[in-house]
Amino acid sequence: MTVHDNGTIMTTDTHTGSESFTDYVSARRVEIEAALDRVLPRPPVCPALVAEAMRYAVGSGGKRLRPILTLAAADVVASAARPASAAAVQEAWLQAMPAACAVELIHTYSLVHDDLPAMDNDNMRRGRPTLHVIYGDGLAILAGDGLLAEAFALLAHEPCDAGRPQLTERKLRVMGRVGQAVGAGGMLGGQAMDLEYTGRITAPHHPLPPLDADTLRDMHARKTGALIRAAATSGAIMAGATPAQVNAIDAFAGEIGLAFQIVDDILDVQGSSVDLGKTAGKDRATGKVTYPAMHGLDRSREMAADSIARAEHALVSAVLPSGHLMNIARWVVERRC
Amino acid sequence: MTVHDNGTIMTTDTHTGSESFTDYVSARRVEIEAALDRVLPRPPVCPALVAEAMRYAVGSGGKRLRPILTLAAADVVASAARPASAAAVQEAWLQAMPAACAVELIHTYSLVHDDLPAMDNDNMRRGRPTLHVIYGDGLAILAGDGLLAEAFALLAHEPCDAGRPQLTERKLRVMGRVGQAVGAGGMLGGQAMDLEYTGRITAPHHPLPPLDADTLRDMHARKTGALIRAAATSGAIMAGATPAQVNAIDAFAGEIGLAFQIVDDILDVQGSSVDLGKTAGKDRATGKVTYPAMHGLDRSREMAADSIARAEHALVSAVLPSGHLMNIARWVVERRC
Repeated sequence: MTVHDNGTIMTTDTHTGSESFTDYVSARRVEIEAALDRVLPRPPVCPALVAEAMRYAVGSGGKRLRPILTLAAADVVASAARPASAAAVQEAWLQAMPAACAVELIHTYSLVHDDLPAMDNDNMRRGRPTLHVIYGDGLAILAGDGLLAEAFALLAHEPCDAGRPQLTERKLRVMGRVGQAVGAGGMLGGQAMDLEYTGRITAPHHPLPPLDADTLRDMHARKTGALIRAAATSGAIMAGATPAQVNAIDAFAGEIGLAFQIVDDILDVQGSSVDLGKTAGKDRATGKVTYPAMHGLDRSREMAADSIARAEHALVSAVLPSGHLMNIARWVVERRC
Repeated sequence: MTVHDNGTIMTTDTHTGSESFTDYVSARRVEIEAALDRVLPRPPVCPALVAEAMRYAVGSGGKRLRPILTLAAADVVASAARPASAAAVQEAWLQAMPAACAVELIHTYSLVHDDLPAMDNDNMRRGRPTLHVIYGDGLAILAGDGLLAEAFALLAHEPCDAGRPQLTERKLRVMGRVGQAVGAGGMLGGQAMDLEYTGRITAPHHPLPPLDADTLRDMHARKTGALIRAAATSGAIMAGATPAQVNAIDAFAGEIGLAFQIVDDILDVQGSSVDLGKTAGKDRATGKVTYPAMHGLDRSREMAADSIARAEHALVSAVLPSGHLMNIARWVVERRC
């Protein structure tokens, strides 16, 4: 399987059921982008400029990996139920879609804020100028905040649960997981560690433990892994997964998240700026410690492959069908952007 | 009643039941600050520096007006129920406390981001250096994000609803309201308007309608009113308010929010930096259009008083007891900081 620089996939398809993975990803991406368009606020509900800025950030394409993972996890759980039916899978997607959109909004918020001059100072993202380059830092901060707030409003608001208290309860569990994944214990804690370890916080320092392999793994688990885990488990929960199924999908997604970040580090060394749609070679230039820098390229590739093997094991142990989850895992490691 | 510069209140007390308003505010403030301390993340759950930055922002005192309003609204709704009991009021507070904390975390996040150089560029807040002055812009952005994320995680997570589906459903309604209040349609939309009208967004402008009295009111309703309304209605909802009661408290809080912002504008003209704990005269220096600038000081004072009268009318119309809500309304207009 090969992933092209526009995010489309050319693959020796692994067929699962009646639909190829390429078709599956394309179809889900269309649904997700339509749903995102529906949920983003517009005037007169909100001022025109902030609405435009939020849409610019969300509309810049991207792989939509996280929301596709949400839907694929819902799919697998619904397929594992007995009796399984196509209608049940459709219903699971419907219930998981707000979470899928919320996770993508949150991912987009994190890119907008990470790209700011006060953070990673990136001027290009997905082949276009970053938000702050166009609208200035102030509006970019606000638009990022808006994406984060909208994600939670969306999780709370979708009114498709009248008279179904179990859906209300699932939503609340999803929101708790997503909130934890985003917060100081998760994604933004990882970004804070990154700022510290690259010397971009100059004021009252805490003594930092040395950036050894465990700390690097912890930083990556927070920065990338936490939201990918929340994406997958949200889909599973909304589809009515058992606690054992949620745990298995959580373990699966944790491994995928690690592999994703290792591959990100490798692509920064090996990829071209054109393929990546952002500046390659940036990690080294900014003094970031990465998997290739710490373990070498070959060992990093092995570690990503090991993660994928453990991800598969997690599904098998819980007697979950793989569905398209393992195709997503392979996509993560074989991508070029 | 007089509010001193440290936020304490000297008042010709209006007694309601057995407790004076001064005692009520002091007691609620202690409870709220203890709860905030419990819910803020700490190492090893999150990196030490971001935890410290979040605590610095939240721990800087302040009036705690919004969470006190949440608890007072819960109180009024519980007192209006028949049969009312002290135990029912206590239970309403307990259920409303996560929402009270969440609203204060969100208010604090908004101050941290608004103070950034890319926004209002304030170096002092509540008599202390602002967060970005100490930790740099990058960590201040992240700590603000963290407060926002933590607020939603908190709303979702408090586990005091086992087996009580109506509480789960109330929480979800609260989260939806809070999410809308924070988002592009609410608070941060208002801040975006503020940036636009003071010429701090230089890139692709939308034609702005002239900043007339209606637009100024709309901007204030978003910037200040939306979260104050969400604070009050959250308390009411968690206490089991009827739709009519929620609407009345929403109308009450909308008026309080407007009065609050008018008084803020007046204090910026008339207050001293020492009293305010932040730079006075800033609105004029940055070219902000304010109530005194548009309507004059005397008329602005009248407008604030009119709002308070309408706030009282909203409660009376819904046959709600005033409880301490009208004391809070008077506090809002009579404060000095």
